[in-house]
Amino acid sequence: MGKALPKMEVLSTELEKELGLPAGYIEKYSGVRKRYRAEDESNSSLGAAALHQALQHAKISAKELGYLISASATFDYPLPNRASAIKKQMEDGEKTHFPCLDIDTTCLSFVSALDIAAGFLHPVHCKYVAIVSSEIASKGLNPKDVETYTLFGDAAVACIIGVTEKPEQGLIHYQLQTYSEGAELTMIKGGGNRYHPKEHPYQTDLYSFFMQGRQLLKLAKRSLPSFMEQFWKDSTCSLHEVDAIIPHQASKAGLILLQDITQGHKPTIGSNLAAYGNCIAASIPLLLMEMREQGNVQEGSTVLLIGTAAGFSIGAALIRL
Amino acid sequence: MGKALPKMEVLSTELEKELGLPAGYIEKYSGVRKRYRAEDESNSSLGAAALHQALQHAKISAKELGYLISASATFDYPLPNRASAIKKQMEDGEKTHFPCLDIDTTCLSFVSALDIAAGFLHPVHCKYVAIVSSEIASKGLNPKDVETYTLFGDAAVACIIGVTEKPEQGLIHYQLQTYSEGAELTMIKGGGNRYHPKEHPYQTDLYSFFMQGRQLLKLAKRSLPSFMEQFWKDSTCSLHEVDAIIPHQASKAGLILLQDITQGHKPTIGSNLAAYGNCIAASIPLLLMEMREQGNVQEGSTVLLIGTAAGFSIGAALIRL
Repeated sequence: MGKALPKMEVLSTELEKELGLPAGYIEKYSGVRKRYRAEDESNSSLGAAALHQALQHAKISAKELGYLISASATFDYPLPNRASAIKKQMEDGEKTHFPCLDIDTTCLSFVSALDIAAGFLHPVHCKYVAIVSSEIASKGLNPKDVETYTLFGDAAVACIIGVTEKPEQGLIHYQLQTYSEGAELTMIKGGGNRYHPKEHPYQTDLYSFFMQGRQLLKLAKRSLPSFMEQFWKDSTCSLHEVDAIIPHQASKAGLILLQDITQGHKPTIGSNLAAYGNCIAASIPLLLMEMREQGNVQEGSTVLLIGTAAGFSIGAALIRL
Repeated sequence: MGKALPKMEVLSTELEKELGLPAGYIEKYSGVRKRYRAEDESNSSLGAAALHQALQHAKISAKELGYLISASATFDYPLPNRASAIKKQMEDGEKTHFPCLDIDTTCLSFVSALDIAAGFLHPVHCKYVAIVSSEIASKGLNPKDVETYTLFGDAAVACIIGVTEKPEQGLIHYQLQTYSEGAELTMIKGGGNRYHPKEHPYQTDLYSFFMQGRQLLKLAKRSLPSFMEQFWKDSTCSLHEVDAIIPHQASKAGLILLQDITQGHKPTIGSNLAAYGNCIAASIPLLLMEMREQGNVQEGSTVLLIGTAAGFSIGAALIRL
């Protein structure tokens, strides 16, 4: 794995001054102490840097990649796709012809990409798949919406997935479900064909991320038990075999809600919300990378990646490292 | 399969009046006689209508779907993903929880989605996958750029893919390659994080599609022979087993170029560029649907779907109906 962060760190204490909030307010309510925000960095530049580091860590060259999957919600350009823009930024992008694919399940894009990458792997034709989740959330935030303005951060993470000869390793089970009653609870309305910039000039409200947090939490709370019941029913593993849970760092309240799924079992539940904020699809792989570096998970660990996404979806992948 | 077109037809003769061009000029140079353009229609409304028709044609209900893949380059909203917006528009979207995934390889998105859908199909857990390619190109066109303004059209097509018990049916081979030297030859620059509407107010040039057509054709011509050589080498079928070729309706010159791949063999090469223009990812499935309806391909036909895409990519899928 590899990561890349924008140079600029923004502390919650700085945002409190900017917004005229009492000291300590933001960390108390959002759980975020600092986040990174892009200035001259782009989705592609951060993505390419993360991928470069991941290739170094994996000790393989770009030539050995069978696929590049960009798994994110935000983008540099409406066209071409993000993966092509990342490949273009890579040092040796022009010497290789591996295919570039974008996938998007918003905050769960990395988790969905694991499932797709597992399907692509082949001992001869596709030994390695690179997944890059590169997100710049900061441009789409509304300073008047304190809850979201203080919650999100920018980051890029890349992960190289390879063929394993150990049958116990890899993706054990994956499940995604979409609940359309929540489709309009999390949106950026302006900028696409519905509210095209040609006809709808920039206005902060229209072009910024908004979420109806309380209703999302209600929907998540209502849907999660049956989602998990189905997940464990279809999986060959059970909850008490899980060593660690890596939840999407959606929000402080969202993380508390996900604790319910442990049902009294005690796997480690990771969190890095305080240090990075919600980095959309980059949150889960960033936490996975940190937990590997810190030795909280290692080869042989059974890890549940789980989260919610705009759409509204719940998704989870059970993997053995 | 099912399709949905905007109500408004725009004839090339009308565009000639608008642009002050001589009568017959547009059809002669672009090969396009008419195209459809969205007014009040959206990617989601057209996509949902096409999916509704496809479900009717397939005689299955939305409840039986195991997956909805939106395979397009254009979108209604930056967030959530397109598939979630389409599901929300479906009559019974709220009664079902099938997962919503977006994939994007620009003009080749439908072809890439076939490969991914084939991997998702499972006789118990995922009997049917719906692929929807719903494109509104017209909002991102620059009237000053005659070549592209007259070339593109809007359309949506949906296709239901199912498990088959006949081992000879289905996806035979798929290949995608990305050539980064062409990454900047086809772009819409404005509207994402690189040129965000907050900092870069709408200007036609910045927010419109542009392509360097001549350089694209050169790159395609240079790359296509080795792409095809690899494709046939890795496939269990050969070119003379192909009954029909369904090329992406990129442009008149692009279609002429693709004729080279037949190498003197004479499979039917389909085209509907004159009637719809280039409909981005919807072009290939729209032509597939029409050729099935007209009896040009039928159960048992071996069909090569092939095209180029912004990025720059070449992709192909060999399928047996």
